[in-house]
Amino acid sequence: MKSHNASILTVGSLAFDSIETPAGKADQVLGGSVNYFSIAASFFAPVQIVGVVGEDFPKNHLDWLSQRGIDTTGIKVAPGKTFHWVGAYDQNLNEATTLATALNVFEHFDPRLSETNRKAPYVFLANIDPVLQHSVLDQIDKPQLIACDSMNFWIKGKPEALRETLRRVDILSINEGESYLLSREKNVHRAARIIRAMGPSVLIVKRGEYGALMFTDRGTFVAPAFPVESVVDPTGAGDSFAGAFMGYLAEAGATRDMAKSDPQQWESLLRRAVLAGCVMASFTVEDFSVHRLMRLSAAEMVERQRQMMAMLSIEAK
Amino acid sequence: MKSHNASILTVGSLAFDSIETPAGKADQVLGGSVNYFSIAASFFAPVQIVGVVGEDFPKNHLDWLSQRGIDTTGIKVAPGKTFHWVGAYDQNLNEATTLATALNVFEHFDPRLSETNRKAPYVFLANIDPVLQHSVLDQIDKPQLIACDSMNFWIKGKPEALRETLRRVDILSINEGESYLLSREKNVHRAARIIRAMGPSVLIVKRGEYGALMFTDRGTFVAPAFPVESVVDPTGAGDSFAGAFMGYLAEAGATRDMAKSDPQQWESLLRRAVLAGCVMASFTVEDFSVHRLMRLSAAEMVERQRQMMAMLSIEAK
Repeated sequence: MKSHNASILTVGSLAFDSIETPAGKADQVLGGSVNYFSIAASFFAPVQIVGVVGEDFPKNHLDWLSQRGIDTTGIKVAPGKTFHWVGAYDQNLNEATTLATALNVFEHFDPRLSETNRKAPYVFLANIDPVLQHSVLDQIDKPQLIACDSMNFWIKGKPEALRETLRRVDILSINEGESYLLSREKNVHRAARIIRAMGPSVLIVKRGEYGALMFTDRGTFVAPAFPVESVVDPTGAGDSFAGAFMGYLAEAGATRDMAKSDPQQWESLLRRAVLAGCVMASFTVEDFSVHRLMRLSAAEMVERQRQMMAMLSIEAK
Repeated sequence: MKSHNASILTVGSLAFDSIETPAGKADQVLGGSVNYFSIAASFFAPVQIVGVVGEDFPKNHLDWLSQRGIDTTGIKVAPGKTFHWVGAYDQNLNEATTLATALNVFEHFDPRLSETNRKAPYVFLANIDPVLQHSVLDQIDKPQLIACDSMNFWIKGKPEALRETLRRVDILSINEGESYLLSREKNVHRAARIIRAMGPSVLIVKRGEYGALMFTDRGTFVAPAFPVESVVDPTGAGDSFAGAFMGYLAEAGATRDMAKSDPQQWESLLRRAVLAGCVMASFTVEDFSVHRLMRLSAAEMVERQRQMMAMLSIEAK
């Protein structure tokens, strides 16, 4: 652990997922954006979760998260059932189809930050109602780097509230289709310019098996997906990408001030953080739920990061 | 020009194309795989074309090719009309739809190589009947590096003949959909393993706006497409990619022997050649037909290659 305060606060969903993919089915498995995010980020930095689960959520999973250095005291156990998502993927594993959503206790989620939560220098607003994202930002003390995610549902349903979120964040991470919807453009490079003008100085566009693009003041960075021969379930790829990305930046002490004080170092850290995100996502998709992440060792992660560098290098080693 | 014989022989189509894309329409413009290939390759090395056109093909275009150091004496002018392709692209610019094909003089194309053609050390078999590809390989003297292209039409229509071609080539360049059809696999990394076992030790899978993957004995290399804000017409992107790729290797004197004698240098040259291909393709798609390539300067190309390197670099400069 670094000497600086590297703590990351994340606010979003914990869920049960029922998923069907070409590789098989999983019923009522552990899901939710902050579940994926926090496990991925915990390889790099301490994480605090603010969320809500129902009485049916397994306590032993919360215990397991705690043992990884994830602060779960901000996870409220509410009377009722946990959020349940039912989704499916066809051969195009880059896009999920939502078949059913039961919000359950998540319907009345109202994130309340503790004193500790308010002091977290790093914040990741997972994909939730942008109005709740504002509420979190209103409660936080002196955030030094804020990233957020969103989705089609909010881009279409609450465009004004989402615009307000975008004005207040440093980094937006969305998928390619969402970037088109948000920008009303059909070319990713034009879309990126429009979205960055809405607020976030760093935009990450996730492209599933094609990797990710990052747009910053210094230009475009292209990161490939790490090759996975058998994609079992893409669910959580984006959230675990974001977890490793933010974790990497938090561990390195990268804050928005660095963009001005040392722009070259800032850009280099961002690029390495994107690659860390791609590597983490490649593990996530190898199994249903958070199963692969739960049995991932730091050594395996580092080895795949090394392979990723070799794959990208123009000079063959 | 290098001291070694860097001459590239390419065999394939010269055509008129009528194309409709979201950006507009072009009627009866200059097309054909070896047209795109040879212009792209001529930035790097001398090129010889073997092909056929009808009496309606503009002589001034053949003259223009000659002025670029492209040997057009192997282009036969046959009685009748030039091959005519009618195609369209929807918003997904990565795949063309063929609306009509009039083979015309191309129907009876029977490539006959001159003494000079037979001595070319570099060979690119553009997308033609695999039986004709064999005929070219039978006529050539001592090829030192052979690359080929193909398409769905031959993968489905002449699978056995295509397999024979694949056993005889060093490099295969196809698009992602074709790689799935050829391998009967739905994952590009598994598909690559299957296709490389058919013969070509180097496989390039083109992914349109997502760039290209190269699979070799040394592993996978991922090359992004160079960002283009306004794609006017994707036609010829693959052939001009192949032209710059082969041109780069020919200029550098890379031959299949190098794969054994200096595998690290071989791999590095292949990777740089792929990037040269991506940069060339990015120009091609900026206008209809070969228009952008015809007005491309070497300085513009080199500048975009530099930008490409910066975009890929993990260390921000």
